[in-house]
Amino acid sequence: MSKKLPNIDSEISNWYTDVVTKAGLADYGPVKGTMVIKPYGFQLWENVKDVFDGMIKKTGHVNAYFPLLIPKSFLAKEAEHVDGFAKECAVVTHTRLKSENDEIVVDPDSRLEEEVIIRPTSETVIWSMYKKWIQSYRDLPILINQWANVVRWEMRTRLFLRTTEFLWQEGHTAHKTKEEAQKETLDILDLYKRLAEEYLAIPVYTGLKTDAEKFAGADKTYCIEAMMLDKRALQAGTSHNLGQNFAKAFDVKFQTEDNNEEYVWATSWGISTRLIGAVILAHGDKNGLRIPPKIAPIQTVLIPIFRNTEQRELVEKYITSIEIELKQLGIRYFIDWSDSSPGFKFNEWELKGVPVRMEIGPRDVESNKLVIARRDNSEKLSISRDEIRDSLKTILDEIQNNLFNQAKVFRNENTHNVENYNDFKEIIKQGGFVKCGWDGSQKTELKIKEETKATIRCIPFDEKPEGLTCVYSGELAKHEVIYAKAY
Amino acid sequence: MSKKLPNIDSEISNWYTDVVTKAGLADYGPVKGTMVIKPYGFQLWENVKDVFDGMIKKTGHVNAYFPLLIPKSFLAKEAEHVDGFAKECAVVTHTRLKSENDEIVVDPDSRLEEEVIIRPTSETVIWSMYKKWIQSYRDLPILINQWANVVRWEMRTRLFLRTTEFLWQEGHTAHKTKEEAQKETLDILDLYKRLAEEYLAIPVYTGLKTDAEKFAGADKTYCIEAMMLDKRALQAGTSHNLGQNFAKAFDVKFQTEDNNEEYVWATSWGISTRLIGAVILAHGDKNGLRIPPKIAPIQTVLIPIFRNTEQRELVEKYITSIEIELKQLGIRYFIDWSDSSPGFKFNEWELKGVPVRMEIGPRDVESNKLVIARRDNSEKLSISRDEIRDSLKTILDEIQNNLFNQAKVFRNENTHNVENYNDFKEIIKQGGFVKCGWDGSQKTELKIKEETKATIRCIPFDEKPEGLTCVYSGELAKHEVIYAKAY
Repeated sequence: MSKKLPNIDSEISNWYTDVVTKAGLADYGPVKGTMVIKPYGFQLWENVKDVFDGMIKKTGHVNAYFPLLIPKSFLAKEAEHVDGFAKECAVVTHTRLKSENDEIVVDPDSRLEEEVIIRPTSETVIWSMYKKWIQSYRDLPILINQWANVVRWEMRTRLFLRTTEFLWQEGHTAHKTKEEAQKETLDILDLYKRLAEEYLAIPVYTGLKTDAEKFAGADKTYCIEAMMLDKRALQAGTSHNLGQNFAKAFDVKFQTEDNNEEYVWATSWGISTRLIGAVILAHGDKNGLRIPPKIAPIQTVLIPIFRNTEQRELVEKYITSIEIELKQLGIRYFIDWSDSSPGFKFNEWELKGVPVRMEIGPRDVESNKLVIARRDNSEKLSISRDEIRDSLKTILDEIQNNLFNQAKVFRNENTHNVENYNDFKEIIKQGGFVKCGWDGSQKTELKIKEETKATIRCIPFDEKPEGLTCVYSGELAKHEVIYAKAY
Repeated sequence: MSKKLPNIDSEISNWYTDVVTKAGLADYGPVKGTMVIKPYGFQLWENVKDVFDGMIKKTGHVNAYFPLLIPKSFLAKEAEHVDGFAKECAVVTHTRLKSENDEIVVDPDSRLEEEVIIRPTSETVIWSMYKKWIQSYRDLPILINQWANVVRWEMRTRLFLRTTEFLWQEGHTAHKTKEEAQKETLDILDLYKRLAEEYLAIPVYTGLKTDAEKFAGADKTYCIEAMMLDKRALQAGTSHNLGQNFAKAFDVKFQTEDNNEEYVWATSWGISTRLIGAVILAHGDKNGLRIPPKIAPIQTVLIPIFRNTEQRELVEKYITSIEIELKQLGIRYFIDWSDSSPGFKFNEWELKGVPVRMEIGPRDVESNKLVIARRDNSEKLSISRDEIRDSLKTILDEIQNNLFNQAKVFRNENTHNVENYNDFKEIIKQGGFVKCGWDGSQKTELKIKEETKATIRCIPFDEKPEGLTCVYSGELAKHEVIYAKAY
């Protein structure tokens, strides 16, 4: 645990893997590309989940659960959708194992008539059900979400950021009108932005994906895009206006109020355990994680300091009285009574990114004080015992805000307005986001990707294309876009 | 919705399926044996989940998440385990689809070197990780739980009770000593009993499974067994003492405090969405569900009654004031403003099993009253508006207790002490639980199963085998057991 982490500036990829595993967030699973989310990491995910679950329930959404297994034929019903997912599908073909020459083999007699796939996303199975559930305008809107696991057989995987199986929420809504679906798509994007900024303390750009980058089967994909510490972009959530594509693929029509028949309008939207990766890569430092207090599994850790039994008893009694107060305040805390030295514990809990450390020794007990160390800026202050009630929540709020502001300053400093392709290439090479004009052609978009590996992260809502020229073709810009290399 | 349900006494199987689908709890999925849990059913599951999640967290357990996909070879490592699960495994063999002659087919080039299976339960994958995580006694105990989906390819399925995929929690703990593992096994069983009795309002018998009925890979399996309305048994939860079986299969040893090496001791335990089936079949009546208030998605439904706009406005204003109070009381409520007639709504919410219905019409507004109808016993009473605060929680508690007491009386009346095989067969034929002596031989157990389809549900903790003879062989009884036909 006390071994040094790889350098966060020069070796961020190794730093990342080390932090994830050493801080006890996750571990590799036995099947290639799978991940075990360890208790500390899972608690972090549960906190994120609880926040967002509350947000969507408050806005009239309900949870449900659809099957993991989807008939192979379903995927084919929406042409773009199957193109997008066919190459990464886990396919179930048999349903029994048997013993043969002391080995366990697949029983060939158990072959399925139609193979089934493990859901890479659930539009198809859900719209096959909506077909049964929707007849009339009275059945609309349907505002369903599910928390589930999905499998995409990825070639190159990375804990949290890209794993063969991941956990997510996927919302799937059905509406009477195009306008209502569009409003839902944007309302959810706004919740994603609030989740990222107010809870994960990660500022995000919001906007529209280009056709080349949109979800396979969507009319329009909107996204939140965050900047990581290596100045690369991370797509942190997407909200899709699916138009009538899946309604047409599954023949889902409804009777309108004026007795006509129309295809249903749809949206889908998702955030995943990838967000944990975003938190790590947005806030980490050379000593490890820095977790925003609002989602931290442990908001404050108490480190007792003593040299002998007498001191220990003194400290323990004092801590017990503090504990009562922490409980009343609703603080998520942990008291580290393990055998390690205080120094070892300091390092360990810094690595784990706990926002506030309380150090409590015999001298603190005597003077009715304690030492508070902030993880975000390493500040130490001695406060009186009676100040906990008033100060602790304020300090946690300050840490939350400070992490957000640091990330925002960093992002803004590394987002550059660029007018020519040489500057563009230089910034992409050095790292950073580029704001520039784009002529709107897919050819230009692909050329730039080929030459620089940068992609259009989004066409921001507040784009100002007027007077811009395309950074690549020099033609009049159709859009102002944000370019970056992405995770 | 107003169509009559099948007779609950003579056609309980049809009644069950009708209630599940018409009350909006669940629907069939497209792949055989899979289930869609609809919002109303899922909310019920979420409530059960929240209660139990709180219980295990309070007792020091933490949640984590292990992969869905398990290498085929893992299953083979524990001999009994593979025997138990080999015949119902979903096997993933390929990872890509492709287009061929306008059809979507499995890409033969994407065949996996080693097939993977979808977890039917997670002992093997979890113990492969514990192997990495456990070195010393300091790493113990591990008290991990996960909420997950599992797949068992069942031949005969039934919504909630037996589905190809189901949702559950599976606890997997690791301990230093045999005694500690045994204590954990029983502590959890006690939580299961509390969950069933105090929240689901279902009385349960608790005890030990026979070797023939225990979990594949366990030393001992303990269970909670409930009686359904057709007097058949439903296994509602199991807690396993796994001994050192999985530690040996995955070679997981730890260094003891006195510097020896020993295999780790283990438990596992689970409850699933099957519990929703238990709630339906323990409390239902001819009009549909009766959901215990503590877990009901909607605890009280408000039905406005009016004939014209003027009356509607009057009623609406009155209801708004009641709503404020329900919110303050923390009651889960729903106001049904839909276009249907009050009579239709009464039937619909009875079918859905909402514990309390409030009827509010213009005369109630004038007299500052409202009508309360209890779902459990069909009692109607008129209470004054001001009584809500004091009465509603009491009424909900009464309903909760009444449902439990009714189920307990029913179970006790239908549990019979039996001394000879003729009586045994008669009761099993008529329906009911039999308490009797058993000589302890597996031969006897299998013979009885063959001849009557009844199985030993458990050897109850409070068995009194002294002086009993085996109901089948006439030999001295080794155990007193509970026999029944089971779901």
